[in-house]
Amino acid sequence: MHRTRVRVVEGALDANDTIAQANRADFDRAGVAVVNLMSAPGAGKTTLLERALPGLAGVRVGVLEGDVAGSFDADRLSRLHLTVTQLNTDQGFGGECHLDANMVRSALPEVPLGEIDLLVIENVGNLVCPAEFRVGEDARAMVCSVTEGEDKPLKYPLMFRACELVIINKIDLIPHLEVDLELLLANLDAVNPGVPRILTSARTGEGVDALRGWLVGVATRERAPA
Amino acid sequence: MHRTRVRVVEGALDANDTIAQANRADFDRAGVAVVNLMSAPGAGKTTLLERALPGLAGVRVGVLEGDVAGSFDADRLSRLHLTVTQLNTDQGFGGECHLDANMVRSALPEVPLGEIDLLVIENVGNLVCPAEFRVGEDARAMVCSVTEGEDKPLKYPLMFRACELVIINKIDLIPHLEVDLELLLANLDAVNPGVPRILTSARTGEGVDALRGWLVGVATRERAPA
Repeated sequence: MHRTRVRVVEGALDANDTIAQANRADFDRAGVAVVNLMSAPGAGKTTLLERALPGLAGVRVGVLEGDVAGSFDADRLSRLHLTVTQLNTDQGFGGECHLDANMVRSALPEVPLGEIDLLVIENVGNLVCPAEFRVGEDARAMVCSVTEGEDKPLKYPLMFRACELVIINKIDLIPHLEVDLELLLANLDAVNPGVPRILTSARTGEGVDALRGWLVGVATRERAPA
Repeated sequence: MHRTRVRVVEGALDANDTIAQANRADFDRAGVAVVNLMSAPGAGKTTLLERALPGLAGVRVGVLEGDVAGSFDADRLSRLHLTVTQLNTDQGFGGECHLDANMVRSALPEVPLGEIDLLVIENVGNLVCPAEFRVGEDARAMVCSVTEGEDKPLKYPLMFRACELVIINKIDLIPHLEVDLELLLANLDAVNPGVPRILTSARTGEGVDALRGWLVGVATRERAPA
């Protein structure tokens, strides 16, 4: 007598997560650590990268720039002699407000994984959808500018929860704002208690060394199997 | 002999536009003008409304607050004794990064159209998707903070093209920034030549009268048929 064997597939992945795992496997084979960097428009991601990336001693860095249109940030970063790849969401992707795993995968042939140790993916400026799509990264970080006000963690909780590092940027402007930094940090702890945070000013350089340290840590950490 | 008559439907609307027209018909019947106000997170939409709306002589104003989560902005505005309705996109709408016509329609039973002349819809903070969805509004306006940098019109061109007014906010901070206002305005003209713009500081009140004038103009303009 034959018994019908039914194989039960548990934890089935959606298409995005399936492709994210394929990306991750490619990154692992190449020995490349990947950071997915997110923020609202104009929070200072590119300027922070301009300050932090040239000083990463011993770590070869590449950047994958996600934008709806144009290559303004990629052009800025390429002046630093970094390996920069531009990924636009308005060509073939319908003007998407975020990167997803498939978009990143479509860009990988243009990313020289064999020549870098760390890939920073600068996501489209948006506090909502980028947090919903894993792209195969090792770590997610976000930049929140103090000019955006204290309430952003409460209004966009998924983004602030999705990250393992929150960079509070433009702190040189605090004397000129009515923002309450302590309240901002309390709101951050309300949605993601104890999440590591670095206070930075891309303009004065404050906190940039700490950001470099975090990036080197991601680049050199023991990696979990994909 | 019978001839088969084929009716050709041209300019068929997608579902969003069909519902936007239904919203617009309801607004028209009630004699309510509607402004769809958009920006990146933290550009200052709510603070501008706090400053501008109480001074709108002779125009009864309501606000429909769009947020992913919470009612922080609605709570702030309700202190001004405005008619405020909160619409959250995370309950039933999957945490959407924008308002669409159907979401607005679902909120209309809670908006007292018979008691107001002008409805300001404060969209979710996002420079991409809100520009893609008409909600039945008469006019679209956006707020761009000078802290976001000069390049935003070039990086998010659809948003800057979709609006008939661009409000450049937080101009009191210009002395403390490296931003080039003339370049920001030139970039704006590159994507939407000659679009009306108002320079504002919600903190000092500069430009708030001009914004009030624009709102009154929308509220009292001759309305095109839906």
